Amino acid sequence: MEESSAPTSKKGAKKAEAKAKKEALKAQRAAERAAAQVADIDLEDDPAKDNYGRATSPTFTPDTPVVELSSLDDSYDGKTVVVRAWLQNSRIQSAKMGFVELRKGGNWTIQGVVMATISGTGAETQLPAEGTPLVSRRMVKWTTAINPESFVAVEATVKRPLEPVKSCRISGLELHITKCFVLAPAPAVLGMTMAVANQPVVNFSDETPSAGDADKAKEPEAAAESGTPAASMLTHLDNIAMHKRAPVQQAIADIRVEVKKLFRSYLEERRFKEFEPPCLIGAASEGGANVFKLAYFGQEAYLAQSPQFYKQFEIAGGRERVFGIGPVFRAENSNTPRHMTEFTGLDLEMEITHSYTEVLHTLEGVLLHILRTVQERCADEIETVRAVYPSEKILLPEPGKEVRLTFAEAQKLLREEGPAEFRDVRDDEDMSTPQEKALGAVVREKYKTDFYVIDKFPETARPFYAKLDDSGATVGDGVRVTNAFDFFIRGQEILSGGQRINDPEELEARIRAKGVDPESAGIKEYLTVFRQVGVPPHGGGGIGLDRVVAWLLALPSVHLAAGYPRTPKRLLP
Amino acid sequence: MEESSAPTSKKGAKKAEAKAKKEALKAQRAAERAAAQVADIDLEDDPAKDNYGRATSPTFTPDTPVVELSSLDDSYDGKTVVVRAWLQNSRIQSAKMGFVELRKGGNWTIQGVVMATISGTGAETQLPAEGTPLVSRRMVKWTTAINPESFVAVEATVKRPLEPVKSCRISGLELHITKCFVLAPAPAVLGMTMAVANQPVVNFSDETPSAGDADKAKEPEAAAESGTPAASMLTHLDNIAMHKRAPVQQAIADIRVEVKKLFRSYLEERRFKEFEPPCLIGAASEGGANVFKLAYFGQEAYLAQSPQFYKQFEIAGGRERVFGIGPVFRAENSNTPRHMTEFTGLDLEMEITHSYTEVLHTLEGVLLHILRTVQERCADEIETVRAVYPSEKILLPEPGKEVRLTFAEAQKLLREEGPAEFRDVRDDEDMSTPQEKALGAVVREKYKTDFYVIDKFPETARPFYAKLDDSGATVGDGVRVTNAFDFFIRGQEILSGGQRINDPEELEARIRAKGVDPESAGIKEYLTVFRQVGVPPHGGGGIGLDRVVAWLLALPSVHLAAGYPRTPKRLLP
Repeated sequence: MEESSAPTSKKGAKKAEAKAKKEALKAQRAAERAAAQVADIDLEDDPAKDNYGRATSPTFTPDTPVVELSSLDDSYDGKTVVVRAWLQNSRIQSAKMGFVELRKGGNWTIQGVVMATISGTGAETQLPAEGTPLVSRRMVKWTTAINPESFVAVEATVKRPLEPVKSCRISGLELHITKCFVLAPAPAVLGMTMAVANQPVVNFSDETPSAGDADKAKEPEAAAESGTPAASMLTHLDNIAMHKRAPVQQAIADIRVEVKKLFRSYLEERRFKEFEPPCLIGAASEGGANVFKLAYFGQEAYLAQSPQFYKQFEIAGGRERVFGIGPVFRAENSNTPRHMTEFTGLDLEMEITHSYTEVLHTLEGVLLHILRTVQERCADEIETVRAVYPSEKILLPEPGKEVRLTFAEAQKLLREEGPAEFRDVRDDEDMSTPQEKALGAVVREKYKTDFYVIDKFPETARPFYAKLDDSGATVGDGVRVTNAFDFFIRGQEILSGGQRINDPEELEARIRAKGVDPESAGIKEYLTVFRQVGVPPHGGGGIGLDRVVAWLLALPSVHLAAGYPRTPKRLLP
Repeated sequence: MEESSAPTSKKGAKKAEAKAKKEALKAQRAAERAAAQVADIDLEDDPAKDNYGRATSPTFTPDTPVVELSSLDDSYDGKTVVVRAWLQNSRIQSAKMGFVELRKGGNWTIQGVVMATISGTGAETQLPAEGTPLVSRRMVKWTTAINPESFVAVEATVKRPLEPVKSCRISGLELHITKCFVLAPAPAVLGMTMAVANQPVVNFSDETPSAGDADKAKEPEAAAESGTPAASMLTHLDNIAMHKRAPVQQAIADIRVEVKKLFRSYLEERRFKEFEPPCLIGAASEGGANVFKLAYFGQEAYLAQSPQFYKQFEIAGGRERVFGIGPVFRAENSNTPRHMTEFTGLDLEMEITHSYTEVLHTLEGVLLHILRTVQERCADEIETVRAVYPSEKILLPEPGKEVRLTFAEAQKLLREEGPAEFRDVRDDEDMSTPQEKALGAVVREKYKTDFYVIDKFPETARPFYAKLDDSGATVGDGVRVTNAFDFFIRGQEILSGGQRINDPEELEARIRAKGVDPESAGIKEYLTVFRQVGVPPHGGGGIGLDRVVAWLLALPSVHLAAGYPRTPKRLLP
C-alpha cells in the first residue's frame, strides 16, 4: 500500500528529481547573470536612488497604510499603500517597464508594475512633473532582478489592470510600484524553487540517497508523468522554509489549524474541559514495546505512547469530561506513509450515564462536525491542495444515516462482497491494513460513505482496559466482544475508542487475562487509582490529527500533514 | 525563597501530616464499624430492596431527567430528577432519617435527605399509601453508611429546605432521595480524605520520607498553625484522584483552562495561527546543557527545551504570525517551587512591520487580557482558591498606564529604592531571583501594579538570537543592549521575549561572539534556514503557563498549577 499511494512511480520520481536539479542549475545561471547586471548599476547618481535598495527598516510616507494582500479589495483602487510580501517572480518587459509577482498570506498573489517616470540617463535625464513619484530605468532593472523569495516592502498605487491578471489570485487589481526595498534577500540560488515546492512530493522513502541511488537516477527511464519538475520529501525537508511557503503546504497547515479548532469548540460546547497529560512518564505502561526511554536523574523515564491512563485519572479525579491535544510518541521502526514517531493526538474521555454509545455518538459527532465544517470553512484551501494532490470529495453520511457495523458484520461484508483473498476472514481476529482498505471500498460502494464506524471488536484485538460487552456475546470460537470501536476514513483507521473498565476487580482480572502482571511498573499505579477511590463508568477515544488531515485530503502521506514530520530516519529540521 | 514561600513551617508541616495520619486511622475505624453494620442488613425481605444497593447500571423511571448539579435551580422545585455525584459526607439523624452531601461539577454540593416511608419491620411492616416511594429504615441506614467519595446515582424529588443548607453551595434546594445506587464504591479508608485534600499543601520537598524523617515526625513539636489536618505534596500525588477532586484543585484546573483559552482567542482574533513544534529534535540546539537525551534508532534525539528555532522556521516559511501551546522540557536538577522538568509553554512569534515594540505590545496585550478577563470569568474559582491559599488581588495597570522600565532604569530603581543589599547592582549584569522579587515590591509600592515589563536587557543576559538595539546604546562597561524584554508578575518572571536577528551574517557573528560554533549540530541547520531564503524581521516571546496560573493566584508552588507535576524526583503518577 505504501508504494502504490505515492503520486508517481519510483522511476518517475527519480526522473522528476533529476529534472528538478537541472532546473535549479538553470535558475542559478540566470540568477548569476541578473546579479552581475545589478551589480553594474551605480546607484549614487540616480535621482530615484532613495526609492529602492536593500534596507533593514525602510521609511515610507508615515500615513501610508500598511495593507495585507488578503485584505486588498476594490475600495483601495487609486490609493497608495505599503505592501510587505515575498517577491516570487519578475520579468523585465523593456528598459522602462517590468513586472513582479508578490505573494503573502499563504496564497494571496498580486502583480506589481514598475514603470520608469524618469526618462534618459546621465546628462539627458528628464525628471517627471512635480509630484510624480521618481522611478528610474535603473530602479526598474534593479527591482526585476531581485532574487525570487526575497522579502520586500513596496509603496505602490493600487489600480485596476486593463485586463484581469490571470496568473495572480488578486486578478482585478495591480500595484504600481513607486518604492521597493528588499528587507531580507533570498540567495541567488534557492535549494528548491517555489515551482518545485508546490509540486507533489515524489518520494517519501525518507532516506539520504546513497551513491548507488544517484547512479540509478542517471539511468535512462520512462518520461516522468508530469512535465513539471518535482522533488522528494528529503529535498522538501532540507528546504523547510520553501516547503512551508508553498501554497499547498500553507493550505494544509491552515486546514490542520481548523481541524483542531473544530475539535476543541465542539467539545467545549458540550462541557468538555481541556487538560494536558504529561509526556514524561515513570513507567512504560502500555506494554512497554515501542516506547522511547531516557535517563532521568538516576531513574529512567519514558515518553508517553498515549494519554490513556491520564485521561482515566482525570475521570477518577472528577473532571467528568476532558479532552487533550498533544504529542504522543511511538518508538516504532515503521517507515511508511502512515507512521511517524511523534504525532498529535486528539483525545477525549467522558463519564457514561447510560451506555457506551454516548461515547461513540460524541466521537462520531465531533468527527462529522469537523469533516463537514472544514469543507465549508476551508473550501479555498481544499481546492489549493486538490490542484496539487487530486482527490475525490470525501463522501459523508447524511445525518441520521451514519454507518455503524459490528466487527462481525464488517467481516461478513468483506467475505461476501470484498476481494476473493478475503473470503475466509474470521470474526475473532483483528483486521489487517489491506483488509481495512478493501472494506473501505465495499462500504463506499454499498453505503456511499467514506466515513464509518466498526463497533464491538473482539477482545483479542483490544487492550486490557476495554470493557467487555455485558450481554456476554461472543464471535468465532467463543471470543467475547467489547464495547470498543474504530472509526475509518477512506478505509483507513483514524480513531480507536470505547468503554473502559471502571471496576478495579474486573480490571485486574482483565490485566491478568492479557498476561500482564498487575504488580508491574505503571500498571500497579494505574490499578491503584481505581482501588483508591470510586471511578464512574467512562469511555473515550483517541484520534490521530495528522491522519485525519491526511486522509480527509487523500494525501499520499501523513508526513505532508505534519509541520515537522518525525520518522525513524529523520529528526531535522 | 523556596522554604519561605511554603504556607507553614517545616515543623508545622510534619505536625500537620502526623495529624492527618491519625485522622485517617480514626476514619478507618469508623468506616469499619459502619461497614459491619451495613453487612448485617438482610436486603432480601426489604420491600424497598429494589430502590438501593450496589449497581453498575441502575435503572430509573425512563423519563426522569438526569440533571447536573450545576444546572439545578428553582425551576426544578417539586420535580423528580436523577443525579449522579460523589457522596462526600453523610450522617444518620434517627432510625428514620439521614442526610448525605453530594458533590459534582467541581464544587457544586447539595444536601440529600433520605427519610423512611415504611414504618415497622418484619411482621409489623407498614407500607405507605399507594404512589408514595418506598424507603425503608434499612435503606436509610445503608445510604448513610456509603463510603465517602463513592460515585452514586440517586433518584430524588427536588424541594426547598425549611432553612438554607449552609454547608452546601446549593443551599436553596435539597434532594429527597427515593432511590440510591452506588455505581463505584470508594474503599472504607481513603488514602487522603476530602477534608485533607482541600487543605493547603504543607510540604513541597517532594521526597519520599525516609525512616529518619518518619522518626522526626514523632518528636514533640510546636502546634501546627492551623487546626485542620493537611498533607504534603507527596501524599497529594500518591492520592492523585483525591487531589484532583478537591475543590481547590478543580478551581485551579478550571482557571488554567481559561488562561489557555484566552491566550488562544486573543491571538486568533489578531491573525495568529496555531502550530505544533516538535518535541523530539535532532540536536541539543540551545547550548546543550539541561537537555534530555534519548536513543533514537541508532542516532541520538533530544527533547526540545523551547520551540524557539521552530517558531522562527515558521516565520521563514511564511506563516507570518504563529502561536504554539505545548510541552517543553528542562533536564535541570532544580528542586524548587518555581521549576518543573516538563511544563507548558505559551509561545508566539510574529513578523515585525516597524518596530519590535509591536511584539512587546502584543505580548503585553495578551497577558493583560488574560489577567483581567480571567478575574471576571473565573471569579468563583479564584475565590475557591483564595479560601485555601489566601492572597491579595493582583494589581494591574490601568489601560495606557502600563509600566515599562528599561533594564537600566529597573536597576537604578532597585539601587535607590530597594533593600540595602542591592545598593550596588550593575546595569550590565543579569538580575538574580531575589533582586527580581525586591524590584517587584518596589514597583508595586511606586506604580501600584504587580504586572510590569523590563526592556532593553544587556546582551550579556540574552541568547545569541537576541537583536541588538540599533542605536548602539550601551550600559555599564560598554555592554550593548538588546531589543529583548522580560515580563513580571508579583516580582517573578513569567515571559521572555524580544526581536530576533533575521539577517544570517549578523546572526552568525552573534553566534560566534557568544562562543558558539556556527557549524555545531543544530546551530548549523538553524543558520542554514536564514541563508536559504530571506527571513522577514520578526520577534516573539514565550510564557510559562504554569507560572502564570501559579503567580496570578499567588500559589506557593507551580506544582499546584500543573495537572501532573514533573520534578527531578517525581514521574508518577
